[in-house]
Amino acid sequence: MIIILKQNAKEEQVRELKESMRNQGFDIHESTGANTNLFGLIGDTSIIDEDLVMANDAVEAVRRIQEPYKKANRQFHPTDSVVDVNGVKIGGGHFQVMAGPCSIETKEQMTSVANSVKDAGAGFLRGGAFKPRTSPYAFQGLHDEGLKLLLEAKRATGLPVVTEIMDPRDLPLFDDVDLIQVGARNMQNFELLKELGKTNKPVLLKRGLAATMQEWLMSAEYIMAGGNEDVILCERGIRTYETAVRNTLDLSAIPVIKKKSHLPVIVDPSHATGVRDLVEPMALAAIAAGADGLMVEVHNNPAKALCDGPQSLTPDAFNDLMKKVNKTRTFFETL
Amino acid sequence: MIIILKQNAKEEQVRELKESMRNQGFDIHESTGANTNLFGLIGDTSIIDEDLVMANDAVEAVRRIQEPYKKANRQFHPTDSVVDVNGVKIGGGHFQVMAGPCSIETKEQMTSVANSVKDAGAGFLRGGAFKPRTSPYAFQGLHDEGLKLLLEAKRATGLPVVTEIMDPRDLPLFDDVDLIQVGARNMQNFELLKELGKTNKPVLLKRGLAATMQEWLMSAEYIMAGGNEDVILCERGIRTYETAVRNTLDLSAIPVIKKKSHLPVIVDPSHATGVRDLVEPMALAAIAAGADGLMVEVHNNPAKALCDGPQSLTPDAFNDLMKKVNKTRTFFETL
Amino acid sequence: MIIILKQNAKEEQVRELKESMRNQGFDIHESTGANTNLFGLIGDTSIIDEDLVMANDAVEAVRRIQEPYKKANRQFHPTDSVVDVNGVKIGGGHFQVMAGPCSIETKEQMTSVANSVKDAGAGFLRGGAFKPRTSPYAFQGLHDEGLKLLLEAKRATGLPVVTEIMDPRDLPLFDDVDLIQVGARNMQNFELLKELGKTNKPVLLKRGLAATMQEWLMSAEYIMAGGNEDVILCERGIRTYETAVRNTLDLSAIPVIKKKSHLPVIVDPSHATGVRDLVEPMALAAIAAGADGLMVEVHNNPAKALCDGPQSLTPDAFNDLMKKVNKTRTFFETL
Amino acid sequence: MIIILKQNAKEEQVRELKESMRNQGFDIHESTGANTNLFGLIGDTSIIDEDLVMANDAVEAVRRIQEPYKKANRQFHPTDSVVDVNGVKIGGGHFQVMAGPCSIETKEQMTSVANSVKDAGAGFLRGGAFKPRTSPYAFQGLHDEGLKLLLEAKRATGLPVVTEIMDPRDLPLFDDVDLIQVGARNMQNFELLKELGKTNKPVLLKRGLAATMQEWLMSAEYIMAGGNEDVILCERGIRTYETAVRNTLDLSAIPVIKKKSHLPVIVDPSHATGVRDLVEPMALAAIAAGADGLMVEVHNNPAKALCDGPQSLTPDAFNDLMKKVNKTRTFFETL
Repeated sequence: MIIILKQNAKEEQVRELKESMRNQGFDIHESTGANTNLFGLIGDTSIIDEDLVMANDAVEAVRRIQEPYKKANRQFHPTDSVVDVNGVKIGGGHFQVMAGPCSIETKEQMTSVANSVKDAGAGFLRGGAFKPRTSPYAFQGLHDEGLKLLLEAKRATGLPVVTEIMDPRDLPLFDDVDLIQVGARNMQNFELLKELGKTNKPVLLKRGLAATMQEWLMSAEYIMAGGNEDVILCERGIRTYETAVRNTLDLSAIPVIKKKSHLPVIVDPSHATGVRDLVEPMALAAIAAGADGLMVEVHNNPAKALCDGPQSLTPDAFNDLMKKVNKTRTFFETL
Repeated sequence: MIIILKQNAKEEQVRELKESMRNQGFDIHESTGANTNLFGLIGDTSIIDEDLVMANDAVEAVRRIQEPYKKANRQFHPTDSVVDVNGVKIGGGHFQVMAGPCSIETKEQMTSVANSVKDAGAGFLRGGAFKPRTSPYAFQGLHDEGLKLLLEAKRATGLPVVTEIMDPRDLPLFDDVDLIQVGARNMQNFELLKELGKTNKPVLLKRGLAATMQEWLMSAEYIMAGGNEDVILCERGIRTYETAVRNTLDLSAIPVIKKKSHLPVIVDPSHATGVRDLVEPMALAAIAAGADGLMVEVHNNPAKALCDGPQSLTPDAFNDLMKKVNKTRTFFETL
Repeated sequence: MIIILKQNAKEEQVRELKESMRNQGFDIHESTGANTNLFGLIGDTSIIDEDLVMANDAVEAVRRIQEPYKKANRQFHPTDSVVDVNGVKIGGGHFQVMAGPCSIETKEQMTSVANSVKDAGAGFLRGGAFKPRTSPYAFQGLHDEGLKLLLEAKRATGLPVVTEIMDPRDLPLFDDVDLIQVGARNMQNFELLKELGKTNKPVLLKRGLAATMQEWLMSAEYIMAGGNEDVILCERGIRTYETAVRNTLDLSAIPVIKKKSHLPVIVDPSHATGVRDLVEPMALAAIAAGADGLMVEVHNNPAKALCDGPQSLTPDAFNDLMKKVNKTRTFFETL
Repeated sequence: MIIILKQNAKEEQVRELKESMRNQGFDIHESTGANTNLFGLIGDTSIIDEDLVMANDAVEAVRRIQEPYKKANRQFHPTDSVVDVNGVKIGGGHFQVMAGPCSIETKEQMTSVANSVKDAGAGFLRGGAFKPRTSPYAFQGLHDEGLKLLLEAKRATGLPVVTEIMDPRDLPLFDDVDLIQVGARNMQNFELLKELGKTNKPVLLKRGLAATMQEWLMSAEYIMAGGNEDVILCERGIRTYETAVRNTLDLSAIPVIKKKSHLPVIVDPSHATGVRDLVEPMALAAIAAGADGLMVEVHNNPAKALCDGPQSLTPDAFNDLMKKVNKTRTFFETL
């Protein structure tokens, strides 16, 4: 960490600051430039709060050299993490597709979609029981009733299930859920992250609507710091000024995150684009960019879906997509 | 709501769609253009989920005419709302400054800062006991111990207090808190909003890091739809590409929100800018733009603050600011 | 185009507005809602300036139904455009890679790089003689001297060349250039676009740093409206809040633009990411998403490049990339 | 400038890099951390191109300590610049309002508006003869005919005039223009900036749609590096994800720029918001934030304006605004 001093910094303030840093165990490396004085801290600066340093009146700016995350950092864990979700592996060469409806609606719907996505070759069944909706007047999900239907479909198909949690109070209901999803809007719901850090359930952590990659990894770090290292990241588009798509899918996040971290990264082209026609090209592009998996919305009757119908594929369209996904996967594995 | 049909929409799909809309009680107004067919829905469309319409294969696009919020909408509530927080009013001409430390640290700190901000003329004491921090390794707040110190300072000074809630499970601890704050990261923590909608406590709702004004009002609508109409909005800067400030303070939000809604709007120049020197100019600009109040961070020793020191004012600087704030308020009241 | 009237619109203003629209040849379709009055215009509204409508005090809002571009619009030109650049075709199934150094530096460099990229299979040679640099103190390009070196390399290799124009006064220097590039910073340099619209040279139009897809197509429309319909679009990343990459490559722009327009779209993964390691994954992802070509920076000695060295590939790395690009192209053609 | 080396950097590459830096006259200050090696450059690094450094394979990252602009930098020019435009001063306590129509339309319009804004107390007359419009089908301005009308109004009222240039070829037409405006879309039209740097005309440089403050100052530096130091900056809103306003007016730019630079900064609330009702609150807020002036659109008949009618004030409304502006100015001068 480089600490740049103000031109008019008072000598005493600077001395105090250095002393405080030395007391925290850091070595100090001084440097005097033409127009600037600065010093570097040597030691494990990932735990330093930049604000605490900036608060000192003598400090003009702080430049971090080391990344502020440790457990999620590839530097300290060079090989890819493989997350094992009840025997189904993701990461380190293991690729999985998670598919199912945006929201769980009826037993018939879940049974039908679950069978379809299993037949098409999906590795996970997804379905939302707790739905974050912008409007209080929109359908909010079936809650525990929905989870029951999801778990029935799990038993019927043998597919592991992934579903979103929105409130730490609901955690007991997720006992038989295989992979717990944290949605984009809750990526910095730190109390929820801490609670999940105490469990031994794998967590699928979606990128926040306007989260930097560093913030995303810091949220993973929250879960990992609690002792639960089974975190899968999911890119689902970020908010930009562009209005032609719901979100801007940031596929560069895949190779960048893979450089910075050892955690698996999957991509959700359905939520990212919000448009059915864009799911296939973005899914294939995600594979080309190195994704470890995909999350795709499938509904037996998209026109009647209670949520996110515009982006849902029919079972037939999903079946076609899976054929292309599998061929594309094989192609890139041997490229 | 205008529903634009695809050029190649199938007649039967269009007929079904119209029938479904008529069954929901809407009148339909058809229009046939040179290159486009569309129809308008007449009725209360604020409760319609655009996605449900878009999911129909015949639909090219949907253009909303009416705003999707009702209780927060000035159209149905033309006069300014005045929120009464234990006798202290905000909105409709009542202006309040909320001041105090970012985080509650010690009894001495709280007593000292509380007395200072009261003497300077603040109407509310602020202080965080639960702190949302990007890093799990940063100070997370004193929790219930912190709330106790805040409530002690409330009793000692008589100032009503405002503090942030991050988890619905903590709500019982907020019984004696006068105004409950929902932070930017939790603006779309819908379970928390619903819980607050059931209480009779006034809520200070900060704008999300990348929330549109409409989403912000929809989050207010969540609380209001639950029966709690005492919502105060707080602009605290939005995320943009600019890196010279922590966030970009969006002061145009004040007059825009006041046109769309009857709720009071205050401004937090401390979090918005992240820099001490910018607090005063942005505070005065907020008043000029029509804000109903300010939220300002004050610390007895910013250089040693456990959180957000760089943006905290000393009690002396805050006292100077208050003098200017009061003069500026008086000036604009009579302009 | 839907014109939404203010609740308190004066009858006379509304009557005047309608009359003015009828005088411009539009039919008017009225609609009266529960809380809103509006009317639709029927006719070719692509030429209407929304501002002229919004300026009327009776108007609350305008919602465009038809896209404002005509010549670039797929609606009026359903088949893919194929741009023929001196015999080398792009679009409609024709895929091209344009490669070369960011800036032209010396005869040796151009000869060396030109031969390398030709051998590797590039279809175009790129190289900048006029360089838009953020700093006036950075290398600005060799100008006409650079163009000469580029044209020498063209003659030596037979590859058509693409290079950037920054000033309409330089147009005479571009007589032997095959494809003229308009850079991101000049996407809305309308005088330059108009000038290019008068030539018969194909134009490569890069997306502006913060341009919406609609604005990008409107800039293409500027060139096409002047009579020059040979426009190739180039996605090169947009500006977002993310700092881990130089720009956020928006690959969803490929399928979205292809839906809206018939023009070819290529991708520049070098400028988008600014990082060498990201060029390959983003290039392959672009192909998967349906791009009609790529633009890639190659330098014989990236560490000594006068511009954009961090993102330049060595000739060897480019040769490897081309092998993968060709295989990937073949794979997706038959998928 | 801090240069952070890769963990696996080859010794020889590092040695070469250091030697090259020493040859350019920099002193090198080395530092070896727990997990990172880096070194600092001591000397005038404002002229170093970060890319040239990053291109070296041994380099992981570069952190700039010194700002890359020199002539625009307050560090080397501590007092406020005062720009004298034919006897009318801006900056360093001199405040000016520039007012007039978005585009020059007729002699009657210009005469009428010019007299109105002069009577109301404006210090400059504005009016566009060359109009940057997103659509090629929108009114593009009257060009030299428009400039003639503007100069007639100048002679009639004695007000200095400001108008936008879009093409360096038009410069001879601007001989009698007092202040030449560079619009947001041309902020990085470097050829135009260089041309203006060779003149002795004051330049009004608008902030680009998505320009950082540093890029904005670098564009000022382009003009100043050419020898023309009479640059006035104009904040006019930046592009964000928010759609409720045309642009997000960034008033924090005023105090931030004033800290970093000595140049005057004015604000254009008309273009920033795009909405008439927001002009007054944002104009007053700009004064409160420390602006050196305002640019306001005024039209004698906004409903019939050929451009930007929705944001234009009537002469009466402008007259009212000027009264408030003057009172607000006086108030803040003595606060």
